[in-house]
Amino acid sequence: MKVLANKTITDVPGILASGIASGIKKDGKKDLSVIYSKYNAAAAAVFTTNRVKGAPILVSMENIQNENTRAIIVNSGNANSCTGEEGIANAYKMVATAAGALNISPKEVLIQSTGALAIQIPMDIVIPGIGKACSSLTEQGGFDAAEAILTTDTRIKTHAVEYELGGKTVRMAGIAKGSTMIHPNMATMFSCVVTNASIAKPMLVKALKTSIQKSYHMISVDGDTSTNDMAVVLANGEAGNTLIDCENEEFKVFQNALDSVNIELAKMIAKDGEGSTKLLEIEVIHGKSVKDAERCARSVASSNLVKCAMFGSYPACPDILCALGNSGADFTPENVDLFLKNGNSQLQLVKNAMNENFDENLVKSILSKDLVTLVVDLKGGEGRATAWGCDMGFEYVKANAYLK
Amino acid sequence: MKVLANKTITDVPGILASGIASGIKKDGKKDLSVIYSKYNAAAAAVFTTNRVKGAPILVSMENIQNENTRAIIVNSGNANSCTGEEGIANAYKMVATAAGALNISPKEVLIQSTGALAIQIPMDIVIPGIGKACSSLTEQGGFDAAEAILTTDTRIKTHAVEYELGGKTVRMAGIAKGSTMIHPNMATMFSCVVTNASIAKPMLVKALKTSIQKSYHMISVDGDTSTNDMAVVLANGEAGNTLIDCENEEFKVFQNALDSVNIELAKMIAKDGEGSTKLLEIEVIHGKSVKDAERCARSVASSNLVKCAMFGSYPACPDILCALGNSGADFTPENVDLFLKNGNSQLQLVKNAMNENFDENLVKSILSKDLVTLVVDLKGGEGRATAWGCDMGFEYVKANAYLK
Repeated sequence: MKVLANKTITDVPGILASGIASGIKKDGKKDLSVIYSKYNAAAAAVFTTNRVKGAPILVSMENIQNENTRAIIVNSGNANSCTGEEGIANAYKMVATAAGALNISPKEVLIQSTGALAIQIPMDIVIPGIGKACSSLTEQGGFDAAEAILTTDTRIKTHAVEYELGGKTVRMAGIAKGSTMIHPNMATMFSCVVTNASIAKPMLVKALKTSIQKSYHMISVDGDTSTNDMAVVLANGEAGNTLIDCENEEFKVFQNALDSVNIELAKMIAKDGEGSTKLLEIEVIHGKSVKDAERCARSVASSNLVKCAMFGSYPACPDILCALGNSGADFTPENVDLFLKNGNSQLQLVKNAMNENFDENLVKSILSKDLVTLVVDLKGGEGRATAWGCDMGFEYVKANAYLK
Repeated sequence: MKVLANKTITDVPGILASGIASGIKKDGKKDLSVIYSKYNAAAAAVFTTNRVKGAPILVSMENIQNENTRAIIVNSGNANSCTGEEGIANAYKMVATAAGALNISPKEVLIQSTGALAIQIPMDIVIPGIGKACSSLTEQGGFDAAEAILTTDTRIKTHAVEYELGGKTVRMAGIAKGSTMIHPNMATMFSCVVTNASIAKPMLVKALKTSIQKSYHMISVDGDTSTNDMAVVLANGEAGNTLIDCENEEFKVFQNALDSVNIELAKMIAKDGEGSTKLLEIEVIHGKSVKDAERCARSVASSNLVKCAMFGSYPACPDILCALGNSGADFTPENVDLFLKNGNSQLQLVKNAMNENFDENLVKSILSKDLVTLVVDLKGGEGRATAWGCDMGFEYVKANAYLK
């Protein structure tokens, strides 16, 4: 599998995209994108577990049941969430508008909205915008689409790979925006992965579920799951590989590619968490089970105390032990070792749950970098998992306290 | 039931206390307290659910099994946690020293340590300190004890009530320190309630368990449960009421008193959360069950986004809905109403999950006060619960990033 540099979703054959400034965002930034497959495509999606779900989520949850999916429309600047019956009616109208412009069935359209909550979407702006975005679809529109889905993100998030699948060269690319509920009124994590592989819908659903567990479920910015989270994957079969319809070798290869794209996008989301200055990577090894390792990794990556300490480049080892203890995982506290990665070597910070004598200045300098990798060795089995998060500093508070 | 102004644990007959500066804290502040009952007392305690438990917690979990408890020794400045076998041996030595000085059995002594983790307790300082603290016990020592248990707390936390129980006048008083794992290396929530009521140990255990659920389990400062959390209650029977040995009327009266003392102490802990500027009170009414109401109340009180918004006195209603949706509680999102208490009246912020038109300046001025009470009406049943938290601002980050 080869990572393609500087590639995006429209480098996948059969995929067109666009991203335009419709006027939802008052500052003139791009705010509306359409992703379109020239061919019938199988789609799978995972939606927020929040009991409060935005209108576009409810509509997409219905339309994903359809055999084929041809287009995904995404607006930023307004999440169309906490908007009642009117919001749901508006989401249906947006879908119908796109379907009409693209000459496909409304059931073949998914919709996502991200941005401010509890404000009705400005339909007088969005409806003509959808028309314009549909007529602007090109084979070069991937970066525009990646830009138009952003809210408080500071950079676009895109990743692409190429690999062999059943003798055919296949591409897979994705775009994403961050980061969970990073900003109170600017919600939603969204990712869209497209591929020209041929895979049956039930297998795509299976692959996405597995992949989510290793990627978007393993990142945390502030512990709040938004009302509009959605991860989608679209496979249009253009590559002409033999249809993957069971868990064969090709399925494993496909799964591997999907995992790698989703993990890279997830890491980009974590790193670009609001107000963050660095990416935290928590590798947990030798858990009693994978579940135990996952719980430990996620708990450390989500701890406010660990996040604040990382902002200050301070090796708060007891906080890390405390977060492990709070995780609900089964492990023996007295066995825990903790290491800090330093290039290709590792520095031991904790041995058998007690602080080692380490060089504080060296540790501080490693923790000051923009990627901090901590390795937790539970010494209890073969389970392993990695989670990602970011530090928490003054900028996070400033943004979320609505201070200028 | 009457709240006693300016009273503390030594105003409960038969209770002596002391608080001295032994030298664990380098700044000369009080750091060692002893609470002692002149009579045999029944005790109940609840300990941290963190899998990583400090040495004093392990020793106290053993000693609470004893029929009688006569003394509790508490040091601040060092939590004796993540300190291995040596830490446990030291905790036993501290208990034995106190037992010797007080001429009681080591089994009758509970121990709690709060402060820095992962550092061995300085036994050359603590052992003579315990001797001195035991010889300093007086009937006026309650405030000294309340002071000596503090770490990063900004003020002492003490509450006392007097009430009739089976024809006798009974007193109950408590001291506490905050606040969960507010400071990475300065862990531990601790509370100690004493009373001269006569109650059988199993009933005391039962009453404490119920009480915890409404008080310390309903507060959050930063979501991290420390390695040393402990809440204890001691009843010495001096009042001479008929022993409460079943769930009779007297038990209900006792329960009510215990709840009120623990709730007041819990609120003081929440309000004094590190770097906080105000107390948040989240009242949830009409939940499908009490459990659902509890989940909702806790989730809102613990949300980083809500906490940051409250720091900025910003009415982040969608964040509150989002936190409810993340709580795991069963409720109908479309039904949710939200109110802000303003003295004796209420201002409606959200009706049926949608923002009401409210006076933003008025809301900002109410949110700027040092007590903010939000009322969430789930309109789904009779379950109700209240949780408390605090806002999250720059001072929280500063302290936990170890920035000066």
